[in-house]
Amino acid sequence: MAGANHEMVKYTSPADAEFLYYGHCKCIDTVPATPDGKPTPALITRAALQEGNIPFLVVDAGTRVKPSIPFVSFGLEPGRNIISENAMDYSMVRRAFEYGELLGKQLAALSDLVVIGESIPGGTTTALAVLNALGIDARFKVSSSMPENPHELKNGVVAAAIKRAGTVGSSYEAVAAYGDPMLPSVAGIASGAVDAGGRVILAGGTQMSAVVAILKHNSKPLDKLCIGTTTYVARDPTADLAGLVSSISKQVPIFSCDLHLGESIKSGLQAFAKGFVKEGVGAGGASIAAMIKSKGRITGKRLLRSIEKEYETSIEIARH
Amino acid sequence: MAGANHEMVKYTSPADAEFLYYGHCKCIDTVPATPDGKPTPALITRAALQEGNIPFLVVDAGTRVKPSIPFVSFGLEPGRNIISENAMDYSMVRRAFEYGELLGKQLAALSDLVVIGESIPGGTTTALAVLNALGIDARFKVSSSMPENPHELKNGVVAAAIKRAGTVGSSYEAVAAYGDPMLPSVAGIASGAVDAGGRVILAGGTQMSAVVAILKHNSKPLDKLCIGTTTYVARDPTADLAGLVSSISKQVPIFSCDLHLGESIKSGLQAFAKGFVKEGVGAGGASIAAMIKSKGRITGKRLLRSIEKEYETSIEIARH
Repeated sequence: MAGANHEMVKYTSPADAEFLYYGHCKCIDTVPATPDGKPTPALITRAALQEGNIPFLVVDAGTRVKPSIPFVSFGLEPGRNIISENAMDYSMVRRAFEYGELLGKQLAALSDLVVIGESIPGGTTTALAVLNALGIDARFKVSSSMPENPHELKNGVVAAAIKRAGTVGSSYEAVAAYGDPMLPSVAGIASGAVDAGGRVILAGGTQMSAVVAILKHNSKPLDKLCIGTTTYVARDPTADLAGLVSSISKQVPIFSCDLHLGESIKSGLQAFAKGFVKEGVGAGGASIAAMIKSKGRITGKRLLRSIEKEYETSIEIARH
Repeated sequence: MAGANHEMVKYTSPADAEFLYYGHCKCIDTVPATPDGKPTPALITRAALQEGNIPFLVVDAGTRVKPSIPFVSFGLEPGRNIISENAMDYSMVRRAFEYGELLGKQLAALSDLVVIGESIPGGTTTALAVLNALGIDARFKVSSSMPENPHELKNGVVAAAIKRAGTVGSSYEAVAAYGDPMLPSVAGIASGAVDAGGRVILAGGTQMSAVVAILKHNSKPLDKLCIGTTTYVARDPTADLAGLVSSISKQVPIFSCDLHLGESIKSGLQAFAKGFVKEGVGAGGASIAAMIKSKGRITGKRLLRSIEKEYETSIEIARH
C-alpha cells in the first residue's frame, strides 16, 4: 500500500500520524485506505490506544511532509534512495540515535513500558539492506504489505545498493549507506529507555529485527526488549520473523496478538488476515500494550469490535 | 539578562533548552551566564529535575534558532514586535492552543502533575499587553529579570502597541495582536492536561497570570491550576504577582519556594536574591515539583546544594 503510488508515499507517514490524533487526516483529503477499503494500520493503533487509554507521542524522524500535529522533531532529513546514493549522512545517523536516547530516557521515567512503532514507506527494503550489511542474510525473510511478497524486487534493490556502497565498518555506517532515519531513531529511543530502567516493545514486523541488530552491534543490552506484532506478520508464510530475529539474538522474544480480523464483518479488515497490510504504525505492539495494561480485560475480540467501530467512523462514514 | 543584547536574545530560549538536557549549550559557545556570573535560571531547573528524577520535554513554540535537542514542535512562527505589527497570525494562536491541548492530554495521562515553564525574552511585556487588552490593569505589577524594573519602558511599549492595534474581541485576538507564541501554547497544554483529569503547575512569574487570563476568557476550568514560582518573584517589591492573579481569578493559588540563594557561597547565585534573574525556565515550579514528588525529602536547602554543584560544573569549571 505504502508504495502503491510514488507521489503519494510522502504523505503516508504524516497521514498516519494525523490519523492517530484526529481519526482523520489533514495532509491528504482522502480517507486513509486503498480504494477497495483496506485501511491504514493506524486504524488499529488508534483503536488500541483509545481502548487502553494509552498516551502517545509522535516523532518526526525526517518526513518530507510535516504532519499537522504536535510532534517531536529529531531534526533529521528525509532518507534518500539507496540505489543511487547513501540514505543518510553519518552525522544524521548519530543525531538520530543520540536524540532517540535523550527522548527514550524521558519516556522510561514516565512509563515502565515504552512501545515504539513506525510508519515508513519501503522500510522493509532498507531494513533488509542494513541487515545484509551487518552480515545477516535476511533475504526472503522480510515481510511485505502485500500478499505477493516482492522479494526479488527488494533483493534487487539491495544488490544494487551494495554494488554502489560496498562493505561498512559499523552499524552507523550501515544505516548511513543502506538504511533510513527510522532505524537509528527507534534504536536510540529503545536504548535510552532501557538505559533508564524501562522495558521496551519494538512494535512492528521484520523492520524491528534491523533495530535489534543495530542495538546488538552497539553492545546495547537486549534483555529488556521484545518485539510485539500481529499474527499476520508473525505467521506470514512469505517471511520469517522468528528465524530472522533468532539469527540476530536469542534474547529478544517475539509476542504476537491475534486481532481476529479474519472474522470481521468488514472486508477491508478481513484483508489483513489475507496478507494485505498486516501491521504498521505500531498496531500489533499497541494492541499488546492495551492487553497488558488492562491485565487481559481487553482481548483480541474486544479490540476487533473497537477496530470495526473505528473503521465505520473513519472509513465508511467519511467516504460518504 | 534576556534583553541585554539584541543579537543574543534569539539564542536565549534554545540555549536554555539545550542546557536542561546537556548541562551546557550548543547554539552558543559561551557559558549560559552574564559576564559577572549570573547564570540562567535553567541551572535551577536542571538541578531540580535531576534531584527529583523528574522527566521533561521541551516544546518549541516558535524559536528563531532551533535547539540541538529532540523537541516537540508546534509548527509556530516566531513572535513579532508588537510595536510595529501583530505578534502572531490568528491561525497561529489557534494552532498553538489546539496543539497544546493535544499534548497536554497526553502528558496528563503520563503523570498526575504537569509542570509547564517557559523561556522567552521580553515575555513580561507581551504578558502585560495581553492582560491590558483583556481589561486587566497589570501596569507596575509585572516582574523583571532586573532589580530596577523598567516599568516605564514596558508601559511605553504596550501603549504604543495599543495605539497601533486597538481593542480586541477575544483572548485569541488579544494574543494575536499583543502576545507571543508561548502564551497560547502554555494555555493550551494546561487546558488539555486539566481536561484529561490532570493537575497543573504554571511554573513562572507574572507571565503565567496572562495564561490564567486566557484560560478564564475561554471558559476553561481553573480549579486544577496553580502558579508555582520562586520567592524572588512572589516577594518582588517591584511587582505584585498575588494582586495580579487575584484580580483575574480567586481560584488559582500561588505557591513559592525559598531556594535560599541569598545564603549561597556563590555570588552569581546570591544575585537571584538581590533582584536579578529571579525565575525562568520553570525554575520555581520544577523546584516545587521536586519537593512534592519527594514528599518533602528534597528541601530548599538541599536544592541549594544541588544548584551550587551545578553552578560549579556548568559555569565555573566551564569558564576555565
